[in-house]
Amino acid sequence: MKLCTFEVKTTLGRHRRLGAVVEGGIIDLNFACAWHLARKREARPYTLADVLVPDNMLEYLRGEETSAGFARATIQSVQEELNAGRQPTGLREETLVYQPGEITMRAPLPDPVSLRDFYAFEAHVKKGFEKRGEPMPEEWYQIPAYYKGGHQNIIGPEEEAPWPSFTEKFDYELEIAFVIGKTGENIKPAQARNYIAGFTVMNDFTARDMQRKEMKVRLGPAKGKDWCTAIGPVLVTTDEIGDPYDLRMTAKVNGELWSEGNTGSIFWKFEQMIEFLSRDETIHPGELIGSGTVGTGCGLELDRWVKPGDVVELEIEKIGVLRNRVVKNAERSSA
Amino acid sequence: MKLCTFEVKTTLGRHRRLGAVVEGGIIDLNFACAWHLARKREARPYTLADVLVPDNMLEYLRGEETSAGFARATIQSVQEELNAGRQPTGLREETLVYQPGEITMRAPLPDPVSLRDFYAFEAHVKKGFEKRGEPMPEEWYQIPAYYKGGHQNIIGPEEEAPWPSFTEKFDYELEIAFVIGKTGENIKPAQARNYIAGFTVMNDFTARDMQRKEMKVRLGPAKGKDWCTAIGPVLVTTDEIGDPYDLRMTAKVNGELWSEGNTGSIFWKFEQMIEFLSRDETIHPGELIGSGTVGTGCGLELDRWVKPGDVVELEIEKIGVLRNRVVKNAERSSA
Amino acid sequence: MKLCTFEVKTTLGRHRRLGAVVEGGIIDLNFACAWHLARKREARPYTLADVLVPDNMLEYLRGEETSAGFARATIQSVQEELNAGRQPTGLREETLVYQPGEITMRAPLPDPVSLRDFYAFEAHVKKGFEKRGEPMPEEWYQIPAYYKGGHQNIIGPEEEAPWPSFTEKFDYELEIAFVIGKTGENIKPAQARNYIAGFTVMNDFTARDMQRKEMKVRLGPAKGKDWCTAIGPVLVTTDEIGDPYDLRMTAKVNGELWSEGNTGSIFWKFEQMIEFLSRDETIHPGELIGSGTVGTGCGLELDRWVKPGDVVELEIEKIGVLRNRVVKNAERSSA
Amino acid sequence: MKLCTFEVKTTLGRHRRLGAVVEGGIIDLNFACAWHLARKREARPYTLADVLVPDNMLEYLRGEETSAGFARATIQSVQEELNAGRQPTGLREETLVYQPGEITMRAPLPDPVSLRDFYAFEAHVKKGFEKRGEPMPEEWYQIPAYYKGGHQNIIGPEEEAPWPSFTEKFDYELEIAFVIGKTGENIKPAQARNYIAGFTVMNDFTARDMQRKEMKVRLGPAKGKDWCTAIGPVLVTTDEIGDPYDLRMTAKVNGELWSEGNTGSIFWKFEQMIEFLSRDETIHPGELIGSGTVGTGCGLELDRWVKPGDVVELEIEKIGVLRNRVVKNAERSSA
Repeated sequence: MKLCTFEVKTTLGRHRRLGAVVEGGIIDLNFACAWHLARKREARPYTLADVLVPDNMLEYLRGEETSAGFARATIQSVQEELNAGRQPTGLREETLVYQPGEITMRAPLPDPVSLRDFYAFEAHVKKGFEKRGEPMPEEWYQIPAYYKGGHQNIIGPEEEAPWPSFTEKFDYELEIAFVIGKTGENIKPAQARNYIAGFTVMNDFTARDMQRKEMKVRLGPAKGKDWCTAIGPVLVTTDEIGDPYDLRMTAKVNGELWSEGNTGSIFWKFEQMIEFLSRDETIHPGELIGSGTVGTGCGLELDRWVKPGDVVELEIEKIGVLRNRVVKNAERSSA
Repeated sequence: MKLCTFEVKTTLGRHRRLGAVVEGGIIDLNFACAWHLARKREARPYTLADVLVPDNMLEYLRGEETSAGFARATIQSVQEELNAGRQPTGLREETLVYQPGEITMRAPLPDPVSLRDFYAFEAHVKKGFEKRGEPMPEEWYQIPAYYKGGHQNIIGPEEEAPWPSFTEKFDYELEIAFVIGKTGENIKPAQARNYIAGFTVMNDFTARDMQRKEMKVRLGPAKGKDWCTAIGPVLVTTDEIGDPYDLRMTAKVNGELWSEGNTGSIFWKFEQMIEFLSRDETIHPGELIGSGTVGTGCGLELDRWVKPGDVVELEIEKIGVLRNRVVKNAERSSA
Repeated sequence: MKLCTFEVKTTLGRHRRLGAVVEGGIIDLNFACAWHLARKREARPYTLADVLVPDNMLEYLRGEETSAGFARATIQSVQEELNAGRQPTGLREETLVYQPGEITMRAPLPDPVSLRDFYAFEAHVKKGFEKRGEPMPEEWYQIPAYYKGGHQNIIGPEEEAPWPSFTEKFDYELEIAFVIGKTGENIKPAQARNYIAGFTVMNDFTARDMQRKEMKVRLGPAKGKDWCTAIGPVLVTTDEIGDPYDLRMTAKVNGELWSEGNTGSIFWKFEQMIEFLSRDETIHPGELIGSGTVGTGCGLELDRWVKPGDVVELEIEKIGVLRNRVVKNAERSSA
Repeated sequence: MKLCTFEVKTTLGRHRRLGAVVEGGIIDLNFACAWHLARKREARPYTLADVLVPDNMLEYLRGEETSAGFARATIQSVQEELNAGRQPTGLREETLVYQPGEITMRAPLPDPVSLRDFYAFEAHVKKGFEKRGEPMPEEWYQIPAYYKGGHQNIIGPEEEAPWPSFTEKFDYELEIAFVIGKTGENIKPAQARNYIAGFTVMNDFTARDMQRKEMKVRLGPAKGKDWCTAIGPVLVTTDEIGDPYDLRMTAKVNGELWSEGNTGSIFWKFEQMIEFLSRDETIHPGELIGSGTVGTGCGLELDRWVKPGDVVELEIEKIGVLRNRVVKNAERSSA
């Protein structure tokens, strides 16, 4: 499945809803589940759909296999209608399938319960230590190091990335991220894939000048990263992504290719990240986990810098394009 | 107010509820608010109380001044009854005032929306750099540096602190913490105090051997801290704490005094932390913010180490004692 | 206030909402309350509005004076904007003031918790006993008699009234109804007006042939009435209705005046009904209470009969017109 | 199943919950369902249980076959534990199986959405017309007549029946009642049994002097019945009741047998009642439907009268005893 969070504007205000992107459009999964249950003569289709396939991604993820199962069955039911040339409509006349122009895509998981960002691509890490004139630490090869990101300021595709007033060195970072879809502790690598709800593209925006000061104090990146992180456009489930270690990754600025890489160059695997995080600690659905920047995947490595007004497009094969325009706060348009 | 989260065991299971500690006991603020509203002939006292003074701390904090105002009025109503020698009881016969032995104190805010931990005591920071044989970075004096803690594994007073299997060097850290109680952005220091809901004691448990590796990789503390942080016993509101810069802080292990300090030795003030965090970024009720360790406030500084089974007691004047026994996982008693 | 329940169609389905009819349009009271609270810098305006001025009439009525007070303050805030030539909009861009063509009016209280219908107009009762060849019972003058109506099949203005297959004698009944707005027991007539949330028009549709059989069995009207009762178009609060005992009442069929009366001809007053109902029994917000048919207020009295397709319009001064087309089931259009 | 509503007193107040009576005690169906789902490794057992087997009877009934199916599976899971000598406990340490002394039985459906009471036993009806000196109406044989009862004042077993101040002639009425468990319209008798959730005992208390006046006015019983109706002790599902037309019915006052009958003497069958009610009208889960008094089943027929303080026990085979003490209001103990 290609899961997403989309927004519709109605006379009752703007509403964000869980969706699935299919050939025929974007399915409103919660309402479609109610419609699907009603066709099976369920007495309270909306009440059940609200629990089985909730209308927001975080609650959906908390439903684990049960919610995923009902989502798949719902998509299949809708797809059968679409294939037969019929446009299904909800019992209360709600739209079940939208066309792209009718909705706005938001971050697939706008409210992750945490964000932990690894540092898993050797080329990027090496370049960083090289730039600082320090040797590559042997500890990097011993543990999959990570820092905790700002999980409260997530934006999605097409949203503007604010340029904070405290930086002169605004940078992008090209990463692949995944979301936890199952509660667990002390998970073995062989089972770890079952704990991944899906993959998405992540742009870990960074204020390099602020970050440089913070790195000197040795607590890792903090204010230099917290104000904004972008993910999207969709969350692609593991069955649909296939091999997650052979996906082309690119970053373009104003249409020009700046960064290029492949998930295959990752040193610490997603399975190892999950094993490490879950050691004597429970992981939960809705946790967002970043890979760290792919080699060449940021302006710092290239010594090229985005300017206010630039458009940054990160793309990962099979997931799509995460596009954000960078704007100075003063220019920020109302969300 | 001395706000807390307490737990009661009933035939309907264990329930956590927002409380206020007063002379006569612990008030169940949500039910007491319903009782208070009913006395004012409100038609739906429980429905309103659930919104005005919710039964959990996080939702209560989100009510900002409105919830705080109703909490104060409720406490006053109950106090008047207690002063008159009467024991008030809820409309549905629920207990409004508990005695300490009838409840278990939990972390006052068991589910903070984030945890950011500063590094604000100069003595502690100096000692750390000294131990690593590095000079004190000038950047420490330029910005109030912080790292992001593990906000998902908060324990409270009297709960056991699990000793993770991956460490041989378990340490405590004596900190004062505060909780954000008001939404804001770009807050000036002069207004910052209004954004603090209250203060509490924090024990930022650390696996020193794991942390040492992580520090080498330069992303700051992560797995070495994430598995557990303790706060409590209560959250003391700013009006009740008085001057937050003259509070004695101590740590005892098995009753023996190991650490001793005073909040007055802090370099970066709470107001400056808020100013820094809120620069071009919104802060929200329910964010937990630590001061960093006070000078001498951890075993690492003293080169003394806690062992499994030890009891660590952190105390801050006007707040109380945060007491946790350290246990190896295998011995962990069911919560 | 002229309170109503209106329906809007959106891409998220049809939604019913509590409204207030003012000169400038129909105010969405729940969203307008949130907007009003946000202007007063309330931290959680939507959460509070959902409890203070809920989006449906029944829950609103249960809020008694508190909800009414916030509804009035909300209307005043909106009115000030409208008077100043500004069109207020909600924080989430929701519409706060609709024009009549944008919404559909539904029964002001679509789900009363009960329906009790009195028999309070002497002229109508006398005519009924006369038709049956029985003397007027002296008991009618001793107690305000009522029967319990079908509270589960309420329709509103502009909705179609279904003609059930089991009748050949479909009739309308012109009544004034009121809704209880306050919980009480053993209420004295002098206080009774405080328990009335407002007045509306009621059409107590009747299948006369079925009813005749039921009356013979002596249990009063049942299946001859249960399938459908209409109320509307609005619920006018007591302060706005003024003297409820001088309101002209008319019934028109296909535009032709059939019935004409005045609330002043009522024998048993609304206050006496409330006193009687509340004797040793609690009455609750959301109870719907009918006056019984005004003299000449039904086809039976006139020996004139509506036919499928006819339009029945009941009008009461200061409340408005309740208009329903009568349709055979087969012709019923989808609601 | 023998479904019930029971009440427990806790420090968090009195709570009413859906139960099932089995040999080993009374099962808390909602919590037991959560436990049952947790054993099947469901991610959110409480969230799902709240929808699949809600904690109150009305919501449970609205779940129709889905809820009934999960209730049966839950009971079987608990029963297996009990049979194996184990006492199951909820995940949050809540009690799953109570012993009778630990709880209070309430009306199985304390808040029916409506109450319609038929007049289906010929012997009782004949006696009534005979007493009034009127001939038995032929219409009684043509339609299953009913009146609408007071669905808002339902009491349960062991609760006190208040004697209203307006009557000198307090009477009991021995009836069998059933509850609708499925939404439907125009239901044929052959299918009608599927729409019955279960059977219970009903005591349709009557103020005979008030009723006599009301009958004279010809609208049927109203204030003479509305203040109180008792049902219980349990709701027995159709599969467990077996043949509903051969159940012994008795009424005892202070232990003395006053009334005796059998459901087999009913003239209008439950299936015919459902057919009649559902003609061109939707019936809903949670509607309570009475049979009318069985022959000899009230004091009026016997010219014997209960006095304040008397205990009335109605018993129907396979359902149990509905026992209520009659009290003058002044003596009413707090509920």
